[in-house]
Amino acid sequence: MKLLEERIRKDGTVIGTEILKVDSFLNHQIDVELLSEIGKEFKRLFEKDNITKIVTIEASGIAIACLAAKEFGVPVVFAKKSRSKNIGTEVYTGKVHSFTYGVDYDITLSKKYLSSEDTVLIIDDFMAKGQAMNGLIDICEQAGAKIGGIGIVIEKGFQSGGELIRSRGYHVESLAIIESMDENGITFREQ
Amino acid sequence: MKLLEERIRKDGTVIGTEILKVDSFLNHQIDVELLSEIGKEFKRLFEKDNITKIVTIEASGIAIACLAAKEFGVPVVFAKKSRSKNIGTEVYTGKVHSFTYGVDYDITLSKKYLSSEDTVLIIDDFMAKGQAMNGLIDICEQAGAKIGGIGIVIEKGFQSGGELIRSRGYHVESLAIIESMDENGITFREQ
Repeated sequence: MKLLEERIRKDGTVIGTEILKVDSFLNHQIDVELLSEIGKEFKRLFEKDNITKIVTIEASGIAIACLAAKEFGVPVVFAKKSRSKNIGTEVYTGKVHSFTYGVDYDITLSKKYLSSEDTVLIIDDFMAKGQAMNGLIDICEQAGAKIGGIGIVIEKGFQSGGELIRSRGYHVESLAIIESMDENGITFREQ
Repeated sequence: MKLLEERIRKDGTVIGTEILKVDSFLNHQIDVELLSEIGKEFKRLFEKDNITKIVTIEASGIAIACLAAKEFGVPVVFAKKSRSKNIGTEVYTGKVHSFTYGVDYDITLSKKYLSSEDTVLIIDDFMAKGQAMNGLIDICEQAGAKIGGIGIVIEKGFQSGGELIRSRGYHVESLAIIESMDENGITFREQ
């Protein structure tokens, strides 16, 4: 997605060769107009998949999922990173390993809001090693929901997540795939 | 807002006289069409306030803030509940007391995304005792930003937050204000 790649080049900050900060428009401050365009692109890419629900993970997936859901006309449900007092006991639970913080944590999603009648589009802001995505897929499988597709805003193509998830047979679309980056610039994969 | 009051009556779950669960449409599963209508109502209520940015708090404020921001044509920035490794050291910090969990925690917002040039609409899903709102107001004051208004989806009118925040002179609009509730039903304040 050219608009997104240009924005990453203009406003993203590369630290070393692995960290890309996009907190000026994607995951701290949020450019809602850009997210509307991203939502339209996801709609175009997954419009034949009969999506009934968009699943994401708090916090930075929520904004992207909601603007996409507006295009699809379906609800969003987001997995929570800690067991909230108000979520109840009837939950699906997935495990996620965070390489940033060096810990495992559980994500939970209430059984009331995901079932075998759903065809899900899973959306997240980043995919690197695919840890959060594995947890979300696990939750969808527990629910018996069909995974209609997986939509990622920025994939770190030099890490293993994209290949791992695609090798499991899922329809994955990443709007920008970074082949490599350093302080001199970013190289995107041709798509 | 009649549409919202009807939805709370239909799909909300009252536990005792103080807890209202709306996780089927507002803060776990999200009805994006309802949130679009809520966004339009906030636009109507604050359209003369020259809002340049919407400020909220993760996680459940993000969806509401983004759908409202789409109406205003301004960016969102959300306060984080824990100091993320990626947020940097240049942050405003506010303190919030959680009565649900009996703990104090810090919320942070990067200094890059809020300044004295901003006129802010603060948005959140609930207001009860006003603790999260105090933290958000504190952050806006540290930034020197003007608070153009405060928009709440559901106010627990039987708790002290709404009165405290209004007594400080802020323009507060709550789309549904609950006077009282129990297993027999919910009484909303006439507005």
